[in-house]
Amino acid sequence: MPIVTLTTDFGEKDHYVGAVKGAIYSELESLRIVDISHSISPFHITEAAYIIQNAYRSFPKGTIHIIGIDSELNAENKHIAVALDGHFFVCANNGIISLLASEIKPEKIVEINIHDRVESNFPVLDVFVKVACHIARGGTLEVIGKLIDDLKELKGIRPVVNPEANQILGTVIYIDNYGNVITNITKSLFEKIGMGRDFKISARTATFSNVHKNYSDAINFDLPPEKREEDGKKLALWNSSNYLELAIYKSNPKTVGSASTLFGLEYWDTITVNFE
Amino acid sequence: MPIVTLTTDFGEKDHYVGAVKGAIYSELESLRIVDISHSISPFHITEAAYIIQNAYRSFPKGTIHIIGIDSELNAENKHIAVALDGHFFVCANNGIISLLASEIKPEKIVEINIHDRVESNFPVLDVFVKVACHIARGGTLEVIGKLIDDLKELKGIRPVVNPEANQILGTVIYIDNYGNVITNITKSLFEKIGMGRDFKISARTATFSNVHKNYSDAINFDLPPEKREEDGKKLALWNSSNYLELAIYKSNPKTVGSASTLFGLEYWDTITVNFE
Amino acid sequence: MPIVTLTTDFGEKDHYVGAVKGAIYSELESLRIVDISHSISPFHITEAAYIIQNAYRSFPKGTIHIIGIDSELNAENKHIAVALDGHFFVCANNGIISLLASEIKPEKIVEINIHDRVESNFPVLDVFVKVACHIARGGTLEVIGKLIDDLKELKGIRPVVNPEANQILGTVIYIDNYGNVITNITKSLFEKIGMGRDFKISARTATFSNVHKNYSDAINFDLPPEKREEDGKKLALWNSSNYLELAIYKSNPKTVGSASTLFGLEYWDTITVNFE
Repeated sequence: MPIVTLTTDFGEKDHYVGAVKGAIYSELESLRIVDISHSISPFHITEAAYIIQNAYRSFPKGTIHIIGIDSELNAENKHIAVALDGHFFVCANNGIISLLASEIKPEKIVEINIHDRVESNFPVLDVFVKVACHIARGGTLEVIGKLIDDLKELKGIRPVVNPEANQILGTVIYIDNYGNVITNITKSLFEKIGMGRDFKISARTATFSNVHKNYSDAINFDLPPEKREEDGKKLALWNSSNYLELAIYKSNPKTVGSASTLFGLEYWDTITVNFE
Repeated sequence: MPIVTLTTDFGEKDHYVGAVKGAIYSELESLRIVDISHSISPFHITEAAYIIQNAYRSFPKGTIHIIGIDSELNAENKHIAVALDGHFFVCANNGIISLLASEIKPEKIVEINIHDRVESNFPVLDVFVKVACHIARGGTLEVIGKLIDDLKELKGIRPVVNPEANQILGTVIYIDNYGNVITNITKSLFEKIGMGRDFKISARTATFSNVHKNYSDAINFDLPPEKREEDGKKLALWNSSNYLELAIYKSNPKTVGSASTLFGLEYWDTITVNFE
Repeated sequence: MPIVTLTTDFGEKDHYVGAVKGAIYSELESLRIVDISHSISPFHITEAAYIIQNAYRSFPKGTIHIIGIDSELNAENKHIAVALDGHFFVCANNGIISLLASEIKPEKIVEINIHDRVESNFPVLDVFVKVACHIARGGTLEVIGKLIDDLKELKGIRPVVNPEANQILGTVIYIDNYGNVITNITKSLFEKIGMGRDFKISARTATFSNVHKNYSDAINFDLPPEKREEDGKKLALWNSSNYLELAIYKSNPKTVGSASTLFGLEYWDTITVNFE
């Protein structure tokens, strides 16, 4: 039996997540359910897009990903099921999987049309669970929706390259649990535009001229511990998802500070890469 | 094998939840364990009562619900196991399932008396796990407790209807992850007292003369986006559990505000419904 | 199939935990995965040591515990797998299991050396998952590492007994979800040094001359409720892990206060026990 994952903004406290899991097990008791995150900021589609893009790859092909963010059905927000990269995604057509779909072409997209049979203001429970269980049983997407071609896109989510191809303007798309700042600049774009040239990354007052591979690269282990911090512990690196990340070695936003607090960077702030 | 759910105020950080799961799997490895919530405010029986009432229904009949809130055994706090609506609840007799039991008569209640065999100050681990596994194996309640008739009631949890039957005085019983304000006024009580009359709902300075079905009803999708917010985005609606809820469309307590912060409503505040 | 537990500082929001679970299921779909905690303070080895010590015991023998705290491989931080008390622990050699190993001698310790086959800055995903699945399949530790003798120790984690053996100097090692203050003084040390003598426990301005068994011992249930709080609700007790804990009956750090806030005690503060 396949796995069903859950990514929502329901939070850790309310009954919503429990109710959804109960409904899934009531339909199909042998499914495995895995929480990806329930702490997405409310209605924050970019955060959800980033999280699902980087979590889904680890799961086996055939996994069904329910994404419950901004999912109430209305005139401008339809429900979709998408087959992409061997996985299935059940969500609203609000841009959540446009990060994913910008890199990998969806195999099939349907607009869900089983709403005559279900109705409430809790669509994850009433609609997404039914669709996910249908897919888990081996049902085809065409049975629960009509084929469509287009996904709604997240605006402004892609970095901009200037006409001279010596500058990338990116934005902060996520700040993680350690306060590290993740930009929308991918390693592949960086290498394609940079072509090995020297560069300077600027984010407010912080600048970087190297992109490292590990957090520990911020530290010179050849120095004795008391001398190590003289040139700071900040660094830019390619994170495990191959996005450009600005980080502080062993940061903690609640105590010693973090890249976000020390560099003064928040969601949607600009990061500039200038190539020589 | 049945499902065991967990609803506690243990929080997400401490070892308590992990220890309880380990103990369950040590007794019965084929059980499935589902977290409903571990973020109930410490000792907050009303929150727990609301959450378990609205989560349990989704689970298959035969599910065993462990509720670990204020569960230390003492002269005034006994442990019980309750069969109700085809489900089992293992908790302290402190009012936690009185919301549930006010709507659906329990089939059987026992006061647990296996404490001579276990003793510590972690009763969920030592007592509730054993009771739940006993039930999961098909054991009867009478083996682990003596039959009793009465459940302790939560005081003040029910709305009050005036003698003229034209006013309901309710209270805020829960504030959810979106800052939406949930009252103890159910749709069935509202319709029984209101009998289709016009009404005004008052909560501090906010008033409402309609109760909607969907959050999107706050928005007039016929208007262009820039004109939509002129008459605000607040609304009253019947939530997915059929309680009267005061909400802001797409609220976020940490950024744009929420019903709780904008209306100034907190737990136990009064909501009044006046019928014409 | 055994259980794999996860204890990390990844937080509840990011994609890291979901990615790790997906990777485990991709390798071995029949494993059961149990979260112990993902809310350890970033890089806080003592918190992790306390939590894993007190959670692991409840799990069946053969359980594999992945601990993802401060686990990036570098010149001073190696990866290890440890067999101890019938359980397996996969983590960095940074002191995390020194609390455990100070009480129970490890059966086997290996320094993991499969890094030539995997490389990234997400070692829990790339290394620990592979090691855990190797162990789950029944593989031996020697296949994935070389035998070593020593574990890195957490400094200052043990209480100090004075030469006259009439004083124990302990420290606060954990503050739990209720704001209760947990010290590193165990019941066995206390009884060994105290030998039944009277004692005074001092922590800033708070003092205690008894150590209770239950939180309810703070309350005299023979008094009517309105008179019960006259002598306060504070107490010292042996917690369910047999550590000395300073507590307030039914505390809530966000509302009525807690042992931590009311006694002014924080992580690493000193607690003194003087025996007569």
